[in-house]
Amino acid sequence: MAAATERKPALGKLESLGAKMVGEVERGDSPTFDTALRSKSNILYDEAIGCLRLGPNTESRTFVNVAQAKKFMQTVAVASRCKKFLEEDAHASIRGLFYQLKYSLGEEFDEELFSEQEESNPLIEDLEVALKLKREDLNLNTDRKGVVAGSMVLMDKFGGEKTEIDCAKQGRSGWMVPSDVDNGMDFVSVDADWVLVVEKDALWQRLNEDKFWKKENCILVTPKGQASRGCRRLIRKLANRKLPVIVFTDNDAWGWYIYWAIKTGSINLAYLANDIATPEARFIGMTMQDLKDYDFLNKLTIKAKDVDVKRAEEMLAYPWIARHKEWVVELKAVIKSRRKIEQDALQGQRLSFVGEYLREKMGKKKFLP
Amino acid sequence: MAAATERKPALGKLESLGAKMVGEVERGDSPTFDTALRSKSNILYDEAIGCLRLGPNTESRTFVNVAQAKKFMQTVAVASRCKKFLEEDAHASIRGLFYQLKYSLGEEFDEELFSEQEESNPLIEDLEVALKLKREDLNLNTDRKGVVAGSMVLMDKFGGEKTEIDCAKQGRSGWMVPSDVDNGMDFVSVDADWVLVVEKDALWQRLNEDKFWKKENCILVTPKGQASRGCRRLIRKLANRKLPVIVFTDNDAWGWYIYWAIKTGSINLAYLANDIATPEARFIGMTMQDLKDYDFLNKLTIKAKDVDVKRAEEMLAYPWIARHKEWVVELKAVIKSRRKIEQDALQGQRLSFVGEYLREKMGKKKFLP
Repeated sequence: MAAATERKPALGKLESLGAKMVGEVERGDSPTFDTALRSKSNILYDEAIGCLRLGPNTESRTFVNVAQAKKFMQTVAVASRCKKFLEEDAHASIRGLFYQLKYSLGEEFDEELFSEQEESNPLIEDLEVALKLKREDLNLNTDRKGVVAGSMVLMDKFGGEKTEIDCAKQGRSGWMVPSDVDNGMDFVSVDADWVLVVEKDALWQRLNEDKFWKKENCILVTPKGQASRGCRRLIRKLANRKLPVIVFTDNDAWGWYIYWAIKTGSINLAYLANDIATPEARFIGMTMQDLKDYDFLNKLTIKAKDVDVKRAEEMLAYPWIARHKEWVVELKAVIKSRRKIEQDALQGQRLSFVGEYLREKMGKKKFLP
Repeated sequence: MAAATERKPALGKLESLGAKMVGEVERGDSPTFDTALRSKSNILYDEAIGCLRLGPNTESRTFVNVAQAKKFMQTVAVASRCKKFLEEDAHASIRGLFYQLKYSLGEEFDEELFSEQEESNPLIEDLEVALKLKREDLNLNTDRKGVVAGSMVLMDKFGGEKTEIDCAKQGRSGWMVPSDVDNGMDFVSVDADWVLVVEKDALWQRLNEDKFWKKENCILVTPKGQASRGCRRLIRKLANRKLPVIVFTDNDAWGWYIYWAIKTGSINLAYLANDIATPEARFIGMTMQDLKDYDFLNKLTIKAKDVDVKRAEEMLAYPWIARHKEWVVELKAVIKSRRKIEQDALQGQRLSFVGEYLREKMGKKKFLP
C-alpha cells in the first residue's frame, strides 16, 4: 500500500459518525444511525436546480431494537471497513467489500454477518446519503466505462505516483474514464470550448478519426451506452467549468434515457442529485425533425420497438419533460410514426457526414432542451 | 481524411479478387467467389497447433445462378466498399457498413441491397476467410473492450499522427485495448516477462493499485469478461514474443469459457484460428484445489448454477479438454460439489491477498494446462 497523501474528508466524517455513536452509548442511550429515505416516495424533481433529488423524509436505525439491531450492526461494519480502506489508501469493489464483511464477526462466531451482496449494497447508499459523500470518497470502486479525447490534461495521483494524462494524446483508444474522477484526480488544463457526449463508441471512433474534437475544440466523450457514475461525474465537473454539454444519441428509449440520466440524474442515483446531474445539458439529436432536414435519412429509419413507444409515453407524463413543448412534439412524432433513427444512419451517404451534421446543428443551435 | 501511409496488403488482395472476377467475365464465364465453409460441420480442433480452425470444405458463389446472384452481388458490394474505406484511410463499424450499403444500388433503383445487418455480417466473415485476413485489416472496427498496464510501449499511427502509448504510465485507468492492434500499431518495447490475464476489471484495479505488474514484471490485462477480438489478438501477439500467458478467472462456466476462448479460439471465430488463439496459455485459478490450499475460501464459495454444471459436463465431452486429467479432476469436482469460487473471494481476509495468491501459485507453477 502506498503511503496516504492528504487526509481525506471522508475519514473525518466517518470518525464523527463513530464518535456520535460512542457518545450515545456512554450517555446510556441506544446508538442510532440517521439517513435520508431513498424510497420512490421520497424522490422529487427539484425545479430550482433541475434534477432529481431526495425529499425531506428520513429513516433512523437504532441498535436497541430487535427489528433494527442486525441492520444497525451491518451499517456500522460497512462504515468501519471503509474507514480501514481509507486509512490503508486501498480501494475495493462493492463485491470485495461484501467478501471482506461476510465473516467479519470474528473467529469465535461461526455466523455470517452478510449472506448476500444485496444486503451490503443498500447500506453503502445509506452511508453515502448520511455522510453527504459519494462511495468513491469511501475508496469503493464502481464499474467504469466511457472514453474521452480532447484538449484536456489531468493529473492522476494514484498509488503514491503522479501520472499526467493528456487526453489529446491517446491515439485511437482515448482515455478510459475511471471510477473516481475526484479523489487524487485534478484538472491541469481544459482548453476546449464545449463537451460532446456521444452515445455509441462506434460513433466516437468515427469522430475521433475525423479529429472532430480537435477541429471543433470540444471534449469528446462516449459513455458507451448508459453513463457510469464516473462518466456522469466527469461531465458534471466539466459543466462546472462553464463548458456547454451537448448530448448526441439515438432517438429511442435507450438514447433518451441516457440523455435524461445525464441531465436530471436517475431514480437510482437521485440521492447523489446535482453531484452527478448536469441540468445544463442540451440534446442535439437524433430527432424526428432530422427527417425533414436530411432527406436521405427517411430511407434509413427503423421500426420503433414497443419499449420505445412506451418510454415516449412515460416521458410525456413527467412534468419536467412535458413542459418543454419541443420534447412533446418529438415524442409524439415517434409515437405516431413508430419509426426511429440511429445515429449510425448518418453514415449512410458518407462516413464523414456525422461531423457535418453535428457542425450544422451546432451552428444553428438546433437543440432540444 | 488523413493521407494514406503505407499501402495496405488488404488493398492488394481486394484488387486481386476483383481482377479475377473481371477476367472471368471477359472470358465469358460467370464470376465466382470461393470461401471456406464456416458451418459447424467444418470446424475442427487442430491437434498440431492446438486451436479450433476451419476444415477443408469450401463454398462457391456464382453470379449466374438465380439462387446465388443476390448474395454474390452483396458480397462484391461489401468487398468494394471496404476497398473504398482502405483507399480513404477511414474506418467504419459493421453497422456503419450496413447503412452505407443498404441503398447502394444507386438512385435509379428504389430497392434495398440489404434489409438487415444480419445479411451483411456473414459476408464480412466470408471475405475474411477468402482473403485470409481479419476484418480489422479491411478498416472495419469491432467492439473494443479490455484494459492493459505494464512495461510496454506502443506506437499508435492513427489519422496521420503518431502517438506513443506507454502502458506503464496510465495511472488508475490503464490503456484501453483498441479494435485493431495490428494495422498502424507497433510494439516499441515490451520489457515484461509474462502476461497475466484477469477476468474481472475489479481485480485488475486491485492488482494495478498493488503495483503487481511492476513488482512481478508482467503485462496486466483484463478483457473485462469475454475477450474482444482486439484483446485476444493482443494476447496472441504478446505470446508471439515468447511471453508466457497466464489466465486468472472464476471457476465457473463463464470463467472457463473466457480461458478456452483465449487458448483454443471459439466456434464463432474458428475461421481466425491461430491468428487469435493462444494455445500456450495456462490457467492459474480459481480451482477446486484452492479450497484445500486456502482454508478460508471454504466459507466463501457460492452455489454453482445449473449453467456451470452443464458447461462442465460439456467440457468433459471435448476431447481436447478431456485429455488433460487435471481438467477432468477440476470439472468433476465442481459437478460433484456444486460449489464455485469467485476470484473476488480472495479478498475476504485482506485486499492484498489476491497478489499473494498469484505469487504463490506462480512460484509453485500450479497451473492447469
